[in-house]
Amino acid sequence: MNDALRKPAPPTRTLEDSPLYAIVNPKSIVMFGASNKYTAMGTSVLSSLQGLGFEGPIYPVHPREETVLGLPVYRSVEELPETPDLAIIVLPTPIVIETLEACGKRGIRHAIVVSAGFGEAGGDGLALQEQLKETAARHGIRFLGPNCIGGVNPHHKFNATFLPCGQTPSFIGMASQSGSFITQMFAYLERFGLGFSTGFSVGNEANIDIVDCMEYLAACPNTKVIGLYIESIRRGRDFIDAARSIVPHKPIVAYYVGGSEGGRRAGLSHTGALAGPDRIYDGVFRQSGVVRAGSIEELFDYCWALGTCPPPRGNRVLIQTHSGGPGAVAADACDRAGLKLLPLSEATRERLAPYVPHTASINNPIDLTFSKRAMDYMDVLPKVVLEDENSDAVLMYLMMPKRSVLRAMDAMGITGETAEKEADSYIDHQGRKMAKVMLAAEKPFIGFSFYTGENRFIKGLYDAGAPVFPSPTRAARALGALVRYARLREKLAGNEI
Amino acid sequence: MNDALRKPAPPTRTLEDSPLYAIVNPKSIVMFGASNKYTAMGTSVLSSLQGLGFEGPIYPVHPREETVLGLPVYRSVEELPETPDLAIIVLPTPIVIETLEACGKRGIRHAIVVSAGFGEAGGDGLALQEQLKETAARHGIRFLGPNCIGGVNPHHKFNATFLPCGQTPSFIGMASQSGSFITQMFAYLERFGLGFSTGFSVGNEANIDIVDCMEYLAACPNTKVIGLYIESIRRGRDFIDAARSIVPHKPIVAYYVGGSEGGRRAGLSHTGALAGPDRIYDGVFRQSGVVRAGSIEELFDYCWALGTCPPPRGNRVLIQTHSGGPGAVAADACDRAGLKLLPLSEATRERLAPYVPHTASINNPIDLTFSKRAMDYMDVLPKVVLEDENSDAVLMYLMMPKRSVLRAMDAMGITGETAEKEADSYIDHQGRKMAKVMLAAEKPFIGFSFYTGENRFIKGLYDAGAPVFPSPTRAARALGALVRYARLREKLAGNEI
Repeated sequence: MNDALRKPAPPTRTLEDSPLYAIVNPKSIVMFGASNKYTAMGTSVLSSLQGLGFEGPIYPVHPREETVLGLPVYRSVEELPETPDLAIIVLPTPIVIETLEACGKRGIRHAIVVSAGFGEAGGDGLALQEQLKETAARHGIRFLGPNCIGGVNPHHKFNATFLPCGQTPSFIGMASQSGSFITQMFAYLERFGLGFSTGFSVGNEANIDIVDCMEYLAACPNTKVIGLYIESIRRGRDFIDAARSIVPHKPIVAYYVGGSEGGRRAGLSHTGALAGPDRIYDGVFRQSGVVRAGSIEELFDYCWALGTCPPPRGNRVLIQTHSGGPGAVAADACDRAGLKLLPLSEATRERLAPYVPHTASINNPIDLTFSKRAMDYMDVLPKVVLEDENSDAVLMYLMMPKRSVLRAMDAMGITGETAEKEADSYIDHQGRKMAKVMLAAEKPFIGFSFYTGENRFIKGLYDAGAPVFPSPTRAARALGALVRYARLREKLAGNEI
Repeated sequence: MNDALRKPAPPTRTLEDSPLYAIVNPKSIVMFGASNKYTAMGTSVLSSLQGLGFEGPIYPVHPREETVLGLPVYRSVEELPETPDLAIIVLPTPIVIETLEACGKRGIRHAIVVSAGFGEAGGDGLALQEQLKETAARHGIRFLGPNCIGGVNPHHKFNATFLPCGQTPSFIGMASQSGSFITQMFAYLERFGLGFSTGFSVGNEANIDIVDCMEYLAACPNTKVIGLYIESIRRGRDFIDAARSIVPHKPIVAYYVGGSEGGRRAGLSHTGALAGPDRIYDGVFRQSGVVRAGSIEELFDYCWALGTCPPPRGNRVLIQTHSGGPGAVAADACDRAGLKLLPLSEATRERLAPYVPHTASINNPIDLTFSKRAMDYMDVLPKVVLEDENSDAVLMYLMMPKRSVLRAMDAMGITGETAEKEADSYIDHQGRKMAKVMLAAEKPFIGFSFYTGENRFIKGLYDAGAPVFPSPTRAARALGALVRYARLREKLAGNEI
């Protein structure tokens, strides 16, 4: 086995050591800014916490309300029956600091400051942010924000963002300098059966920054891959050191937006961060072993592939299709993503011959065309294809329109409601079987389709955890990211010796 | 008004002159290869024709069956009660030529040859294809294929592909050297409320080729934009001439897959076409005024923008968002797509000031942040923004989670089922209003969101015909394509003088 593919031991720092542990795994929470005004952001946050079924006590503090969303209200943090693990502050800017001060006095050591109007606003905001930091430091408080939308840890039934998160716990650990790339991704990821293990919106990073998040996510057992949305890195050296220690055992994907003039200026007014030129960040990522993505879709596509596939041993890919166009597009996209398509080995060609009709191609892509033996495509072929010695990964075109299955049923004399039921159960069975082959493979085995979750077969593959990208181009680029990760990891391993 | 933006007269060649007219607008069809074997491709084609409700007579020819899918069967083409406009042939390779010969004798002048095993198979297939061409030429038959999956014209309730096409008639005219990029796109496009005006799968192009399709689509009144999937151009000079005469009055977008080694080899075994290097095709497209796309998604994204937006007068874009991250991503993607973000004009800044909270930014992107006056975002702001003198186009972040609307209802004392109904009707109303502003704009006004059709608000925008791309990156690139088209058109107009 290639030395570089052996997993080095994970870092010894434990999850509980992280300042973020109590922030996304609190036993109890004090909530500032929730009221019975349903349009207030604080109310939304409380409602999200309740919506995901947070199991510990939540103590709303409010000067006038008696109850908030059914919970008894306290007039001040002093009155609480216990010292909560976490304070969530969604208050007007002028009273944030005195509130954090009161929390500190009460012994609270962790906070999420959602309120804006600090560093990102410039002017007086800069001084206010300094005061906020000083207050926290005096009491030993670690906090996320200000100007953030909190965090989410579905494994702990914890959602402190202002949007509901219905998803089941998943494996993507995310730290984002934009809250939208946490909350706006709930529905987006769910569409592919994906979600977050833990997601952090870091806001202005006045106390806890993206490097702290990376270290937490590196130690988090639910996180298989770390995604970063970056407008600017504040601790460059620490970022590189952290990434280099994480990458050998867990992949990191980053989307950096500040590299263009437009992105830089937008970032500046968003979180007040000063971005650097593209090529400097390119160098930082390369040196750190971080896989760079070119868009939000790519960021999550790469996370999907890296969280579900083993690292490939090389860049040789085999494409299986029954449709020439999608095969050609996949081949073209592979080429552009730095992947190679070699001819099939003689052994593979011989093993495939009995299954391939005369109109088909035993080249690479293997194109089965419109076959009368459609079952071979999902059954025998993938097994043969996986054993081809000339390839390090497989890309496979996947579709199973229900109409085709119903037609086959009809040919067997099965019609009406029975056919509908049988077709569904057949499709579900095929999806589970296919997913099993894909997930058990020792090489990356990635599917692609133009269908997504609205199609029962593809939904079944998602539900079983198989990576099926919504286009050949996206699948090829995700496989390219797998190869890049394997190489970066190898390089880092080499440097460490 | 810029001279280049005046529409030149469309070409004088009429739709009915095209050899393709009868192929996708037949009054009657003879169908070879449909049977009561439900898994046969011919049966699928017939079933698709019936499924879309084709209104003319269809005559199945079969040696043994009495009826096929409920239709009376004829033993031969000689026995038909009339000479049909179109023959669709889905038969085994060896009997295709004799069938076309019989059709010719019967006076049929148009055909779709779905059967494969001709030029693309090499060897004997090459000779067979020559025979097929010769047979057609002798009888003056014009045909699509062989090795194609037919065509679709929802405006004529005509679907001669093997997959059902449920979509309403739309505006994208497509000619594809892969049948999958017709059939596999039915569901894909429907997801965005889009579809084909007419779609052609050209197969081996033995008789009718992609240039003929372009000429047909140029004259087709239902087609607002022409999309091409190209593995190789066989008539280079004619392609350039046709495109140059079309582009001044109708945009053309092409995705060329043969430019990479992988794409070239895959295309070769797919339709037997010999592809050329990337940069040669780049030159051909530039010279022709064709906008080049880099993937299937881009191909249809560009068609979407070009079919719904007026041409921009320049490359200056204004971004409106209420979320910093998506705004920054859009700005970054605009920059990379060759678009410029200028500061807002003084007049625009003054007009916006009353609507913008203190945490927000009146830069470009305009970031309203989490506003308590959410209605301004969709109501007053777009109107002000559209009148900004420093921009030629608007990109706007769009989302309206139902939960937020329900919260506002709750705040007004409306709950339960009434709230659900009111929320839906409010969302529908907002969608219609927003779409109206977008579609009436004299500049391109493009939306972006991470939500798609599963979200009621976004679905409403799709249904009203507004372009709302599923990510900031895709929206920015589509806007880039609009600018490229406007420039190419201007250049062609200049050349014509």
